[in-house]
Amino acid sequence: MRELLEAVADGDLSPAAAEAKLQGYVTGEAGRFDAARDRRRGIPEAIFATGKTPDQVAALAADAVETTGRALVTRATDDHVTAVESRLDRTHPDATVSRRGSSLLVEGSSYECPSLSATVGIVTAGTVDGPVADEAQVVCEDAGATVDRIDDVGVAALDRVLDQLDRLREVDVLVVAAGREGALPTVIAGLVDTPVIGVPVSSGYGHGGDGEAALSGMLQSCTVLSVVNVDAGFVAGGQATLIARAVASTADRE
Amino acid sequence: MRELLEAVADGDLSPAAAEAKLQGYVTGEAGRFDAARDRRRGIPEAIFATGKTPDQVAALAADAVETTGRALVTRATDDHVTAVESRLDRTHPDATVSRRGSSLLVEGSSYECPSLSATVGIVTAGTVDGPVADEAQVVCEDAGATVDRIDDVGVAALDRVLDQLDRLREVDVLVVAAGREGALPTVIAGLVDTPVIGVPVSSGYGHGGDGEAALSGMLQSCTVLSVVNVDAGFVAGGQATLIARAVASTADRE
Amino acid sequence: MRELLEAVADGDLSPAAAEAKLQGYVTGEAGRFDAARDRRRGIPEAIFATGKTPDQVAALAADAVETTGRALVTRATDDHVTAVESRLDRTHPDATVSRRGSSLLVEGSSYECPSLSATVGIVTAGTVDGPVADEAQVVCEDAGATVDRIDDVGVAALDRVLDQLDRLREVDVLVVAAGREGALPTVIAGLVDTPVIGVPVSSGYGHGGDGEAALSGMLQSCTVLSVVNVDAGFVAGGQATLIARAVASTADRE
Amino acid sequence: MRELLEAVADGDLSPAAAEAKLQGYVTGEAGRFDAARDRRRGIPEAIFATGKTPDQVAALAADAVETTGRALVTRATDDHVTAVESRLDRTHPDATVSRRGSSLLVEGSSYECPSLSATVGIVTAGTVDGPVADEAQVVCEDAGATVDRIDDVGVAALDRVLDQLDRLREVDVLVVAAGREGALPTVIAGLVDTPVIGVPVSSGYGHGGDGEAALSGMLQSCTVLSVVNVDAGFVAGGQATLIARAVASTADRE
Amino acid sequence: MRELLEAVADGDLSPAAAEAKLQGYVTGEAGRFDAARDRRRGIPEAIFATGKTPDQVAALAADAVETTGRALVTRATDDHVTAVESRLDRTHPDATVSRRGSSLLVEGSSYECPSLSATVGIVTAGTVDGPVADEAQVVCEDAGATVDRIDDVGVAALDRVLDQLDRLREVDVLVVAAGREGALPTVIAGLVDTPVIGVPVSSGYGHGGDGEAALSGMLQSCTVLSVVNVDAGFVAGGQATLIARAVASTADRE
Amino acid sequence: MRELLEAVADGDLSPAAAEAKLQGYVTGEAGRFDAARDRRRGIPEAIFATGKTPDQVAALAADAVETTGRALVTRATDDHVTAVESRLDRTHPDATVSRRGSSLLVEGSSYECPSLSATVGIVTAGTVDGPVADEAQVVCEDAGATVDRIDDVGVAALDRVLDQLDRLREVDVLVVAAGREGALPTVIAGLVDTPVIGVPVSSGYGHGGDGEAALSGMLQSCTVLSVVNVDAGFVAGGQATLIARAVASTADRE
Amino acid sequence: MRELLEAVADGDLSPAAAEAKLQGYVTGEAGRFDAARDRRRGIPEAIFATGKTPDQVAALAADAVETTGRALVTRATDDHVTAVESRLDRTHPDATVSRRGSSLLVEGSSYECPSLSATVGIVTAGTVDGPVADEAQVVCEDAGATVDRIDDVGVAALDRVLDQLDRLREVDVLVVAAGREGALPTVIAGLVDTPVIGVPVSSGYGHGGDGEAALSGMLQSCTVLSVVNVDAGFVAGGQATLIARAVASTADRE
Amino acid sequence: MRELLEAVADGDLSPAAAEAKLQGYVTGEAGRFDAARDRRRGIPEAIFATGKTPDQVAALAADAVETTGRALVTRATDDHVTAVESRLDRTHPDATVSRRGSSLLVEGSSYECPSLSATVGIVTAGTVDGPVADEAQVVCEDAGATVDRIDDVGVAALDRVLDQLDRLREVDVLVVAAGREGALPTVIAGLVDTPVIGVPVSSGYGHGGDGEAALSGMLQSCTVLSVVNVDAGFVAGGQATLIARAVASTADRE
Repeated sequence: MRELLEAVADGDLSPAAAEAKLQGYVTGEAGRFDAARDRRRGIPEAIFATGKTPDQVAALAADAVETTGRALVTRATDDHVTAVESRLDRTHPDATVSRRGSSLLVEGSSYECPSLSATVGIVTAGTVDGPVADEAQVVCEDAGATVDRIDDVGVAALDRVLDQLDRLREVDVLVVAAGREGALPTVIAGLVDTPVIGVPVSSGYGHGGDGEAALSGMLQSCTVLSVVNVDAGFVAGGQATLIARAVASTADRE
Repeated sequence: MRELLEAVADGDLSPAAAEAKLQGYVTGEAGRFDAARDRRRGIPEAIFATGKTPDQVAALAADAVETTGRALVTRATDDHVTAVESRLDRTHPDATVSRRGSSLLVEGSSYECPSLSATVGIVTAGTVDGPVADEAQVVCEDAGATVDRIDDVGVAALDRVLDQLDRLREVDVLVVAAGREGALPTVIAGLVDTPVIGVPVSSGYGHGGDGEAALSGMLQSCTVLSVVNVDAGFVAGGQATLIARAVASTADRE
Repeated sequence: MRELLEAVADGDLSPAAAEAKLQGYVTGEAGRFDAARDRRRGIPEAIFATGKTPDQVAALAADAVETTGRALVTRATDDHVTAVESRLDRTHPDATVSRRGSSLLVEGSSYECPSLSATVGIVTAGTVDGPVADEAQVVCEDAGATVDRIDDVGVAALDRVLDQLDRLREVDVLVVAAGREGALPTVIAGLVDTPVIGVPVSSGYGHGGDGEAALSGMLQSCTVLSVVNVDAGFVAGGQATLIARAVASTADRE
Repeated sequence: MRELLEAVADGDLSPAAAEAKLQGYVTGEAGRFDAARDRRRGIPEAIFATGKTPDQVAALAADAVETTGRALVTRATDDHVTAVESRLDRTHPDATVSRRGSSLLVEGSSYECPSLSATVGIVTAGTVDGPVADEAQVVCEDAGATVDRIDDVGVAALDRVLDQLDRLREVDVLVVAAGREGALPTVIAGLVDTPVIGVPVSSGYGHGGDGEAALSGMLQSCTVLSVVNVDAGFVAGGQATLIARAVASTADRE
Repeated sequence: MRELLEAVADGDLSPAAAEAKLQGYVTGEAGRFDAARDRRRGIPEAIFATGKTPDQVAALAADAVETTGRALVTRATDDHVTAVESRLDRTHPDATVSRRGSSLLVEGSSYECPSLSATVGIVTAGTVDGPVADEAQVVCEDAGATVDRIDDVGVAALDRVLDQLDRLREVDVLVVAAGREGALPTVIAGLVDTPVIGVPVSSGYGHGGDGEAALSGMLQSCTVLSVVNVDAGFVAGGQATLIARAVASTADRE
Repeated sequence: MRELLEAVADGDLSPAAAEAKLQGYVTGEAGRFDAARDRRRGIPEAIFATGKTPDQVAALAADAVETTGRALVTRATDDHVTAVESRLDRTHPDATVSRRGSSLLVEGSSYECPSLSATVGIVTAGTVDGPVADEAQVVCEDAGATVDRIDDVGVAALDRVLDQLDRLREVDVLVVAAGREGALPTVIAGLVDTPVIGVPVSSGYGHGGDGEAALSGMLQSCTVLSVVNVDAGFVAGGQATLIARAVASTADRE
Repeated sequence: MRELLEAVADGDLSPAAAEAKLQGYVTGEAGRFDAARDRRRGIPEAIFATGKTPDQVAALAADAVETTGRALVTRATDDHVTAVESRLDRTHPDATVSRRGSSLLVEGSSYECPSLSATVGIVTAGTVDGPVADEAQVVCEDAGATVDRIDDVGVAALDRVLDQLDRLREVDVLVVAAGREGALPTVIAGLVDTPVIGVPVSSGYGHGGDGEAALSGMLQSCTVLSVVNVDAGFVAGGQATLIARAVASTADRE
Repeated sequence: MRELLEAVADGDLSPAAAEAKLQGYVTGEAGRFDAARDRRRGIPEAIFATGKTPDQVAALAADAVETTGRALVTRATDDHVTAVESRLDRTHPDATVSRRGSSLLVEGSSYECPSLSATVGIVTAGTVDGPVADEAQVVCEDAGATVDRIDDVGVAALDRVLDQLDRLREVDVLVVAAGREGALPTVIAGLVDTPVIGVPVSSGYGHGGDGEAALSGMLQSCTVLSVVNVDAGFVAGGQATLIARAVASTADRE
């Protein structure tokens, strides 16, 4: 404690970073950021941009970089991105901002991405499932896992799936994103012996549109499957990361 | 007309049968029976037993046999069956009553089943889909179509489907019954070039149970598929019969 | 195989077309296009534009023209159409683009539309059902079927339906699009002996709006009827095509 | 007031009947009975038996007979009926109990049914709609209206409806009960110029079963129609009675 | 018939008006207009603008004026209104267009509004219910009924309702529009002996918003009430008109 | 602590009671009972009988009496009651078991009910709401509050409510239970200045039955109201108790 | 009365204010304003801006200031605010308009805010819950209560809640706003003995989004909790105010 | 192959077992049993008893024992159990049948349970969640995993959870079953860094009852969590087993 306070006094540690170390979370202008979540839960708190103003998102991102070295933002619009970039220009000019679809990864200059010796397979049924899969991929890569991305293998043409069977069987855990009737995770889970996490996607229209048919189909799947909410790429990626880490850390332990 | 009335006078035609011929429908003690539906729609009026008393079902069945030669009853309980049998013992002692699950086919002694040179494939995903498929089968067979029944080929083990691919490709039209996530019609329709009619089955439990997940999945199917209501084996069989007859009659016409 | 590769070497066949012939599908910049679906399923893969960027739709359309001679796009906005046209100007300058509502048919210069000796009746209840019926019509015409379009015969004025009874009875299969309470397919199916495919339309408002009342009404229909999802004109047209082709090919076989 | 109390003192009026006259409602062992509703609203309070014990129903029925001359009970089971009969044997031995399906009309010995010079048409689509129509009929007849009951004219066979067109056009107001897709009120309302009240019936099964498809279809009807809740025969009959009485009393006024 | 054709030949009657007289409906560029509905159903076909292009609405309005003397348009946006006005400038320059909220009444120069000796009460719970009530009012006034409009008497302050009790009891039929919990029709129907038609309004937010709470509350009402769909002011006004006319015509008959 | 253990050693305190004192909860054969909830939350843990076997309920009730002096059981069937009585005969022969509908209050011989100087008004709309109101009443009385019960004042006859206005205005907090359209809490809350807690009751049938219409109506109420789940009499009673105690303890504090 | 009229005659009282005093409500150009609600219900009528035009809101706000000294507007957009400000510039130039998020408090120059010796705790789970909590806060402060606002203590990091336990236990009543799964009110209510009012917030996405998961979770809470509709900050604040006032007035009474 | 057939010829292998080895599945009197699922998917096909007759379940169980050494039956009623026992008495008299709630594990005499060096934590919120957790436990134990069962730690008393934190943090993967508002998996997942699988349980009543509130709450969880369908203990146990095996086999590999 004394050490910490001296570091603050010496200007080696910002007050926010010290608060985060002491209390776990830090209270900034846009609310509390849970700086200890990564350590406690194994997955950092992501800043979900929907419903927050650009200024709020930028402030939280700066708090995250300050206290955990990097920030993860999901569902960001262009306005959110601009605000984050201009804020970080002021507070952390050396940070790099990389964007994948609506997901944003901001890394402070001294942040080092961990390495994780496990592979997550991320599969999509069609082109429209891409952004949801991207969100999952950003989380897995942030955790250092290897990602094997297999796109566009929907069940309307079974050959496209069967052709990828070897890759599907080699990964440690699978995230499978599919909209419409969402049958792909069921078909894949019937063919592999790895854990499969289904992500319903809000494509589709009419009855059961907005991902509801896909969600209920995955929940009713006649195979073994666990599921996350519609479009919840971040959650699926987070769960896959936890499994991948459990696999990898056991390996390391030996 | 004169002829008809004379036949009634001579006792060669019952008043009910004459009424049916003149008016299309006949009004009995349990309501009107649409004796002309078979001729007009190509599918006879089935007596849907749920919500009717055993006496009502028996009376309607007797009206049907009297005016169209046979009766088709669906969703019959044991009480309905008993009532029908005891009624027909009195009114049409020569009629034969055959039961398939909860479906009943009563044929008058002089009734001749038509013949239809086309084949309907009826497919189930699992054991619990059997009774719904039975209902479809009774309608198709009543119309004289050949039925190729393929049971228990759910997608959790794709081999079971792929092993039947030749049979699936040979029929003129397919009825595919599946509960839970209802993915089977989608997978099959991706592999064959015949019309596929999906029948969601009210198995399953929890969210999307009672056939709702299967129904919405079939409606959202990324292949071409038409659908009937949950457990509506009779409707699926009827639609398959209409298609089979269109195919067959064209063949005959040539 | 050798032949194919030589054609590629000679520039007579594009690599994409060769890939499609060998593998069934082709992998382009916007995902995989299932070039074999037409052959396997009898209905080509349509490019569903909703949720795809104009560039993605254009790339897939070019892939489709390249490998199957023509492309079918549904739910296209003006932006999608512009992107498709400008892309094809570059890649297939001789292709013709024809638009019907939000449906697009792109035909390469050497594409020959097949001919199919069967007639599909396409019926609407009111003016607002037009675009959905258009989508069905494009698919049927792409397959070479004759389309008999009967518009605006909603049940609020029964005479409008009854006046068309002769035409309704002459076609090989009927697609009936209706919104609000969706009673038209039920009324028509009670009067004809052809297969009827109901298409609920998302007109209407309040409780049961968005086509849900029409959908549930068609599923509950007291006649024999099969159904597709709300606004799913493409699927209805596809199913009608499969039936029409079964009828026609039997005729041809004789 | 004085008069009333003297009648009570003399035993010419029961305390309950006096309480009802003074206060509008009477408080008995099973709750308050709204004795003034008939006068105020034009329709008596019916005792809805579901969820009440046989004893509660019997007590309320006795209160109703005591204060308004007769009692109307709906959704009565056999247990309810037995309890009512045995209670009335003790309290009002001269009362007559008549039952129509699950509806019960108890008339005190001195009760005189009013007369109403208007006709309510009550129409059913099929046999299963009977009990709901019965409930409506009991209310109309209790009010003295003439009821023209037309059964079993579902739209699957349009002739059955068209054959009754003259009767349908002659009544003052129509109650039309239909389950499944509930199209009958729409079809009838397109043909007549009287007010039509649709009653969805909870027949049907699968998606939209329990009367929900019929309800949403009637609410979405492309004609002019008002609706009551699923199986709400009593409410439909009450509303028809109010309209019939408005028509009749205007006639009488002249 | 001969007479009619001669009138057409002489230019006294347009071909469209003749077609409407002969066939009931007229087929114009935007679909069929049911010119006989007013005569047959007692309520003219209204042109529901939502989902139709301005040109379609304008064409149908012109057809309506041509064949029935006037046109009724509901849910019109500014674009629809402009298109109607500019079209009628060309085809019926003498017609007058009057607008009430989103409802439009176009009257040809020779059109004479009928007169109807009955009064419809139209009641709203709050300011936001106004436009829905307006829609009902336009229909009633088009039919010649007197309208007594009572605004803003929601149940949160019972006095506002009770203060209007005399007016509420004097009309022949009541239309009561209410959003949120929709209790007003129930409270009013408990106090008057006229028929009450409840109109749920899509105000409200959160669970049960969009009028669903009001709709289900009115359907569950513990009083006698019939209901139309959410925001269906036109239907409520139409039903009230039919009742008012039944009352009035009986009066006239005497 | 030492004291406690000595009391156990001396047999003055049962091990279960000691465990509860030390740890807050006690682990018995049927699960953990939260003995500290009353102290911590102000409302004891009630034993919700649905879904538990009679033996489980009896064991938990004995644990509750042992550690908190009394037990509160809700939704008990006859089997549950018998099991509780026979169990307590063995373990706490001096305890008294009192039953109100499906609610059970078991009091150990030395238990003294607290006294609370505040009044809770508990109001029902009709006879069927009684059992739900009973559940609320048991909780309030267990806490020592005075309960003023006002039954059967549904809005179909406003006089019944208005007649009770004085009583309604005198209590400290109101629990109002109503089924069907659930308008009573809204009407009452418009007339009094005390907090009103609405309890939707699962009476009603058809659309919005099972209390859903009442729930959504109360949530949409145009007055100030808070709500508990359908039939949740215990929760409403608990919340009213907390409010009553806040009111009373403030009074006491002075 | 005479006094009142003389004040009007003298210009000391506006006609509107006099009307409000005599009748309780005042009828202005945009509808009736319930000026007596504050007195009768303890909470003033708030002007809910959604669905009203800026002019309507401004007129009602002016009526409110005129008759009750101040106006409370919720869900105001910028257009509403501008209209209110410009209207009041004309009618009440001395009034002050203060805005908190989308809530508006307009106070006339002579208005004196009451004082209330009780504290309401207002708690949010995350940043997006802020505007809903603001709405509650405005009502409580308008009533003179002290508000203790505790932000951003969601359950994903339990420490954030537990750190605030002392503050949570000190207030008289708690309003807890939470979106997503809405677990925060349950967790807090398990730890304190004050009444807790849960406010579900329409953050979240996919299945159960729009606050529905939070609402159903709070209704199902295994602790004692009452609930208001999704985003109904005004209602929660109103209910908290009523409880706070009950507590405070009891204190004062002593 | 030859070897296999000789084993059949010698009676060392039953025809069914041989069929299973050759084809993966075996076709018995009650349908096809997927004997290869365990090998292919890592989880054996369980026989879901609901909707199957006792005879069908018994036949499938015998097929399973015959081909895979043991059978897993879920949702068995007493009738199912009796049928299984009496069937196995005939076909596999040495097999042992063990029952845990409604789950059944039948082991042939020569079956050896595998061993798996990983631990699955199975947690329940309350007594009613027991049977669902049992189903998960049977699957995990069948796979040889160690199960640490932690019962009755619902969030209404946070101490019960916090007291078990060490055990919760030591297992390799967690299955957390909770009904009502289903907050427990969220709270636990916020405290540990292992993968958590939430199982909603169909306890609860009223709105969101039947597990729907718990399901939507878990899907909306603000932490990282994957979910299975309501009451799907088997699926949760299966998914936990796949994760446990991935962890263990990695360890073994080293």
